[in-house]
Amino acid sequence: MATVTCFITLSLACLHVTALKSQLFTRLGDLSYSSEPPITYETFYFNQKIDHFGFLEDGTFKQRYLVADKHWQQPDGPILFYTGNEGDITWFCNNTGFMWEIAEDLGAMLVFAEHRYYGESLPFGQDSYSDSKHLNYLTSEQALADFAVLIQSLKSKMPESPVISVGGSYGGMLSAWLRMKYPNVVVGALAASAPIWQFPRMVGCGDFYKIVTQDFAKSGQNCAANIRSSWKAINNISSTASGLQWLSEEFSLCSPLKAKTDAVVFKSWLQETWVNLAMVDYPYEASFLQPLPAWPIQVVCKHLTFDSKVSDYDLLHGVSQAAKVYYNYTGSSSCLNTSQTATSSLGALGWTYQACTEMVMPMCTDGVQDMFEPEDWSFQAFSDECYGMFGIRPREDWAGTLYGGKDISSHSNIIFSNGGLDPWSSGGVTTSLDPPSVRSARALELKYFQEWIEKAKTRSGQTGSENQL
Amino acid sequence: MATVTCFITLSLACLHVTALKSQLFTRLGDLSYSSEPPITYETFYFNQKIDHFGFLEDGTFKQRYLVADKHWQQPDGPILFYTGNEGDITWFCNNTGFMWEIAEDLGAMLVFAEHRYYGESLPFGQDSYSDSKHLNYLTSEQALADFAVLIQSLKSKMPESPVISVGGSYGGMLSAWLRMKYPNVVVGALAASAPIWQFPRMVGCGDFYKIVTQDFAKSGQNCAANIRSSWKAINNISSTASGLQWLSEEFSLCSPLKAKTDAVVFKSWLQETWVNLAMVDYPYEASFLQPLPAWPIQVVCKHLTFDSKVSDYDLLHGVSQAAKVYYNYTGSSSCLNTSQTATSSLGALGWTYQACTEMVMPMCTDGVQDMFEPEDWSFQAFSDECYGMFGIRPREDWAGTLYGGKDISSHSNIIFSNGGLDPWSSGGVTTSLDPPSVRSARALELKYFQEWIEKAKTRSGQTGSENQL
Repeated sequence: MATVTCFITLSLACLHVTALKSQLFTRLGDLSYSSEPPITYETFYFNQKIDHFGFLEDGTFKQRYLVADKHWQQPDGPILFYTGNEGDITWFCNNTGFMWEIAEDLGAMLVFAEHRYYGESLPFGQDSYSDSKHLNYLTSEQALADFAVLIQSLKSKMPESPVISVGGSYGGMLSAWLRMKYPNVVVGALAASAPIWQFPRMVGCGDFYKIVTQDFAKSGQNCAANIRSSWKAINNISSTASGLQWLSEEFSLCSPLKAKTDAVVFKSWLQETWVNLAMVDYPYEASFLQPLPAWPIQVVCKHLTFDSKVSDYDLLHGVSQAAKVYYNYTGSSSCLNTSQTATSSLGALGWTYQACTEMVMPMCTDGVQDMFEPEDWSFQAFSDECYGMFGIRPREDWAGTLYGGKDISSHSNIIFSNGGLDPWSSGGVTTSLDPPSVRSARALELKYFQEWIEKAKTRSGQTGSENQL
Repeated sequence: MATVTCFITLSLACLHVTALKSQLFTRLGDLSYSSEPPITYETFYFNQKIDHFGFLEDGTFKQRYLVADKHWQQPDGPILFYTGNEGDITWFCNNTGFMWEIAEDLGAMLVFAEHRYYGESLPFGQDSYSDSKHLNYLTSEQALADFAVLIQSLKSKMPESPVISVGGSYGGMLSAWLRMKYPNVVVGALAASAPIWQFPRMVGCGDFYKIVTQDFAKSGQNCAANIRSSWKAINNISSTASGLQWLSEEFSLCSPLKAKTDAVVFKSWLQETWVNLAMVDYPYEASFLQPLPAWPIQVVCKHLTFDSKVSDYDLLHGVSQAAKVYYNYTGSSSCLNTSQTATSSLGALGWTYQACTEMVMPMCTDGVQDMFEPEDWSFQAFSDECYGMFGIRPREDWAGTLYGGKDISSHSNIIFSNGGLDPWSSGGVTTSLDPPSVRSARALELKYFQEWIEKAKTRSGQTGSENQL
């Protein structure tokens, strides 16, 4: 089939979609946690340079950060520093239970720093997204520099407190990169679900969707196979006006499908739905992207047990029931909105820009090893699409050069944790890095944190002497 | 005395000088070598992004680099990569004997990469220095990114060749920082005479001039004391028109001194002369900054053995004889030019801009622990001066945050070598970093190079396996 690389932006301007849209909405962490310690924090703002890497633009903006110091033990309790993702920092703060849970054990202060261009941390206020000139300072390097400068400022007030960075998904990548690029600023990093290898030529472009598919395949008989069949069924039924109307009613869509092009958007939305489910297939009830039952994919798959003789209509009825597990578990949704698949706390346009510049993450499907319609990866098509949207072009190899690609062995004190079901583990570091990687082993992570903190304190005792190295 | 922070630019527009001018002309390496292996290389140009850290400016420029592959052993001989300083790369290429000397032993290819904005590597051609807008991409981060991207390109053609970075002075800082920031790109670094700690609050602002003074103090009786006395003698004599004329004739100046302000420039030029001598006080005849005898400061000091009863005129006659050791050792100079103290291969204006942005290196003198007129360090005055020149202000703490300050213990495979007489050792790393630092121990440096190369080869044999970490 013809592949057209395209984004669905928030305004739904495009006709066809790639895997990128799932990235837009769903660069999510696995640090959410079911138990709920009380979350209280104070909000602060820090003056950051708009451009850390040039001196012509000398303006500043206010970076928001949240501080919870209830358990902090003066004067040398550690600081756990969350490296904010592409979204409102309060949302990540409220969904990173692990940090709240270990704060007391460590006597730690928690700091959650917002990523520039997201939430309230807008370098040019309402104009921040107005054009590529204003967007020019939205890069991971600038964000890391923000974090480093903010931490240095905190350290000037709390010089004896070692700092550990923590983050999930894109925030996890930033956490790892902060330790790699600024090891003077953080003594170690926890990088959860961080696909730092999801860049060109590091992992197969189909790996991500293969894992999504496996999650469904093992959660119920015929489940993945029926989703694979559903695309053709949608194509068949959406070829007539009455079919479009049937689909709109069956799926309780807020905006009825009116043309064949709407069906493309509809399929993309469904694809993202399955991807999101794979990312939040937690063994407990949770409400990270949406309120969901424990093991939500198993619940979804209960509606998709047909054998191959099922009719298109019966199949799609099952699919609609399955989708409603994700969108209407609580029964409170009156209709389903195909322009949204997850929380609005995530900054979709900002992530689109980042994907169109540095964060080039090839994605492809073949319909055989995965349950999606085949779609090749074409960097050129992707680049053209980005140029059309922003007037800029992605740099395919820059992230690999900048952040080390697969050659990261010289770094230390970085924990990469990956969920076995999380499709983002496709681009994650699942081999061991000193110290060895751990898989969701919170106790072990805590132990490493304690080791880094002890080591940092021993070292800082020597500061100023000639032997500190 | 009142201190006015000011630059002497190439146009000699200012009235008073700080230590900065010595930095401008003299960020020099100690890698020059007396023996002269034949130097032949090919010249290439590489298309580099003007801005690695933003996507709005997508233009490219041609970075010059020189390649000498006579001794390179295919397919896995190492690459020694010189990280160019603030000047014409051919000059560094011709003055870095150590690399030429060890190339055959290592079977190495030599690459000398020019630093952007110097020599022929001008991002905007003749307009590169026209204003701060065009200068905006002159930073060490951009230069490091140039080096990293160029090396990645070389590696794509020679994937089995480990790369070691080498540099002296500012180029030595870049060599160390390249290993710190891009350890995926270079397996190790030699940073010679690299004052990576010459930044605010890392070393005393007076340390540099103390070492200069010690070099003179130990090179001849009364030598430093007479230089210390000379400033007052110049002030006395330059207070009259006839005194200015006498000074001009005594020092054989190309442009006679006409006003008291000229005497300020004259003193600054003399101060730089002593600084330069301290940097090139080699035990053998050499011609790095100027053609000089072996142990040139000892030769200089032979003219400065007076006791304290000497007259101003006699003292300054001795000083003029001493200065001519530096400026006219070969006897070929018909007059001395106070607007130049070293080779024109160095890019003074570019370095002024770098000092006015990231490379803030506090310098001060007190006339007691050093032999110079007292001058405090004032960041504010420095910043105002920079603002007047370029319309930009330096960022006092950025280099420390970015490059780790004194906390660089997590890095590996960096050799910091310092000359015991070199005043830049004041800001250098003289304690041991894994592996231990060495002091001008070329044989030991070669041994480390060999170890890194062996280790890199063992590791690359595992590339692609899951165990590479």
